[in-house]
Amino acid sequence: MSFGTRRCILDFIPDIIMLGKFCVVGFVRLRRQCVQQSVASFKWILKHKKFPLLLLAAGMTSREVFMEGAQRPRFMAEPITHRQKLRNAKDMKARMELLIMEIQYEFCQALEAEEKDGKFKVDRWERQEGGGGITCVIQDGEVFEKAGVNISVVHGNLPPGAVAQMNTRGKKLSGTSLPFYALGISSVIHPRNPYVPTIHFNYRYFEVETDTGTQWWFGGGTDLTPYYLNESDAIHFHKSLKDACDKSDKTFYPKFKEWCDKYFHVTHRGECRGIGGIFFDDVDYPDKEGAFEFVKTCAKSVIPSYIPLVQKHKNDGYGYKERQWQLLRRGRYVEFNLVYDRGTKFGLYTPGARYESILMSLPLTAKWEYMHVPEPGTPEFKLTEILKNPKDWLRWSGAPRFSRCVLYTDVKNSCIICESSQSELSTFPVLSMILKIAQGA
Amino acid sequence: MSFGTRRCILDFIPDIIMLGKFCVVGFVRLRRQCVQQSVASFKWILKHKKFPLLLLAAGMTSREVFMEGAQRPRFMAEPITHRQKLRNAKDMKARMELLIMEIQYEFCQALEAEEKDGKFKVDRWERQEGGGGITCVIQDGEVFEKAGVNISVVHGNLPPGAVAQMNTRGKKLSGTSLPFYALGISSVIHPRNPYVPTIHFNYRYFEVETDTGTQWWFGGGTDLTPYYLNESDAIHFHKSLKDACDKSDKTFYPKFKEWCDKYFHVTHRGECRGIGGIFFDDVDYPDKEGAFEFVKTCAKSVIPSYIPLVQKHKNDGYGYKERQWQLLRRGRYVEFNLVYDRGTKFGLYTPGARYESILMSLPLTAKWEYMHVPEPGTPEFKLTEILKNPKDWLRWSGAPRFSRCVLYTDVKNSCIICESSQSELSTFPVLSMILKIAQGA
Repeated sequence: MSFGTRRCILDFIPDIIMLGKFCVVGFVRLRRQCVQQSVASFKWILKHKKFPLLLLAAGMTSREVFMEGAQRPRFMAEPITHRQKLRNAKDMKARMELLIMEIQYEFCQALEAEEKDGKFKVDRWERQEGGGGITCVIQDGEVFEKAGVNISVVHGNLPPGAVAQMNTRGKKLSGTSLPFYALGISSVIHPRNPYVPTIHFNYRYFEVETDTGTQWWFGGGTDLTPYYLNESDAIHFHKSLKDACDKSDKTFYPKFKEWCDKYFHVTHRGECRGIGGIFFDDVDYPDKEGAFEFVKTCAKSVIPSYIPLVQKHKNDGYGYKERQWQLLRRGRYVEFNLVYDRGTKFGLYTPGARYESILMSLPLTAKWEYMHVPEPGTPEFKLTEILKNPKDWLRWSGAPRFSRCVLYTDVKNSCIICESSQSELSTFPVLSMILKIAQGA
Repeated sequence: MSFGTRRCILDFIPDIIMLGKFCVVGFVRLRRQCVQQSVASFKWILKHKKFPLLLLAAGMTSREVFMEGAQRPRFMAEPITHRQKLRNAKDMKARMELLIMEIQYEFCQALEAEEKDGKFKVDRWERQEGGGGITCVIQDGEVFEKAGVNISVVHGNLPPGAVAQMNTRGKKLSGTSLPFYALGISSVIHPRNPYVPTIHFNYRYFEVETDTGTQWWFGGGTDLTPYYLNESDAIHFHKSLKDACDKSDKTFYPKFKEWCDKYFHVTHRGECRGIGGIFFDDVDYPDKEGAFEFVKTCAKSVIPSYIPLVQKHKNDGYGYKERQWQLLRRGRYVEFNLVYDRGTKFGLYTPGARYESILMSLPLTAKWEYMHVPEPGTPEFKLTEILKNPKDWLRWSGAPRFSRCVLYTDVKNSCIICESSQSELSTFPVLSMILKIAQGA
């Protein structure tokens, strides 16, 4: 059953309950009416026109009825947890589920706006062991070759393997059954144009009941995988993430940027998957509220960090060579996801896991050529060099650090001598311009 | 340096040594001559014409000189171990290296014979930690989209992770340094035509020095991954492997066939990678000689089991739909190799591993479509059904087991009623024919 067809009376019940005592009375009367007449659908209301009357009787104007509908957050599908439970503003599980539902809807809307005629296919699935998810996919679109935005809300008892894995990274989980609750949003967008980078983001919340009480933490991150390096894109992307992090704590961005470079590392090739971003796990500081606010700000920064890059490059011209390079890089993406990514491995090894939602992150097409090495000096080579030596993209943002970049104008020889390399300078537009003027003089 | 340029005098030294005392004398004289005149190349011999004279003086006719050259095994490149060492007929490491070199050459020759203008690119590489390998690859050929035949001969000390992994499967390896010696051949052939199946084979020998002495074992197997199921191909393939196994022990084929189905299992999808073959590890029975003979027979059976299938289908007509299905199945192949295959994982996690030779097994191109499920009744669906329920392909070969397939001819109703299913019957041509005649009557 699609989402549209479920917008019946049952969908409105939690709203009505929230409006106060009178409304609950109204609701109960309505339901009794429904049962008596054996009509539980919206058609009944339309036909009998009793629903608005009941609400009005409860002290609500028709404008309020309209506003209530307008303010209701819009989702891609019915949430996994019942809407009534989600109204519990104090429970972090409920707040996080509402957040990821909202982020999923907003991001899908933003992507659809860039795609011609493309609409997300929405799959709401349930997990036999507890919970479920909503997987939204665009496949073979004009702009997005494969775009997946997935949320999952799962609970059950932690398998011993997962406990051992968590304890190795410093957790102290003790107990026999260890009931857990995990929920998050995860997305990978593989655009068709090789000049539009691939983005991945994932924000999640975890709760586990141990012998010593409830433990909880947040994890997540956003990272970019370009096929051709555009330095101003890289700076824009990292700047957006830094701004988001800075709202919570100025130390977060440098710490989580470094963690990202370390995590998304294709060790056997000695290179990073992309140009990084932020990555964090086990965040339970400064407190639950503060950690949630941080995650929320990061998740909300995905659209402004990425959509401008799609708009900028989606109509760039490219040929066979660029496409082949993109496919080879997508092969590296597959290598990382299947060999190293903790989330993918954990997912695939979990019995009863919905593998289609886990493997949604894989590109539509990928290539592996034996011993492919790009020619030095080419744009392809330039990218691999950056992947081997992750860069601090925001080193030049804000005020230039002249202690690191000393310029000597040598008018006689019409050039600028500086302590930093030219490629570093080119990331800072003003200095780059001075350099060009001087070289052209 | 390519192989051709190394065919100088040094290459002939071990041969001469093998011919007996007189020849050794001849060789020593020759070498002294070389040293004295500071000329060590073949040109010297050609110029001075002293080499044949020395050999003749040592009691060898020119015909014997010719025969010695003709009988020399031909390899794709200079072996990793020095030829002189390989002459040690008693050492299993040397014998196995000669075997895998020979298999590599023969298989590459057989593949090249099917490929128009395609020649293997040969890379001989050395491993800093000890040993090396020879990787032969055809890429983007007309018949073979990607074909890799790799041998590796490595030695060093076993890392603790590897020891732990081996002990979990029943080995009792104790000691502090544990020097090991591992060598083997590994090959994956991805043809272009979707009607030609992919083959994989791997035969290896392992030796490790422990506190309690030297432990050794053989491992390996051959398996087939078709994109479209052809039952007579499957029977031919399994029959070839069974015949090879039966030469050593009649219990081997059923045991190693089952092991193969279990090993090449894409657990998260609940299906096998292909239609199986044989797979074994830790074979140290009946004795070293017997185990080697078994491995040799299996390795020698690769060409007759596979090349006829290439010849039969390489010119079959196919279209876009078949190609797309092949690419999706290749995605599954990548999933198995990167998520589950012990060899690949062990290789990639080993520091300093030659990842290009390990990942040579990946196809040139692969696809991942979200929620792709073939329509029931199609050839694609038929394949997935077999992958979910591995079949005993040789159940009907030889004499039909009437205890399992009881036929009742019902002339009145013009049909045959039998206890076995129709699909099983169709694998046995004669019964299938009877069935068709009866149905058409």
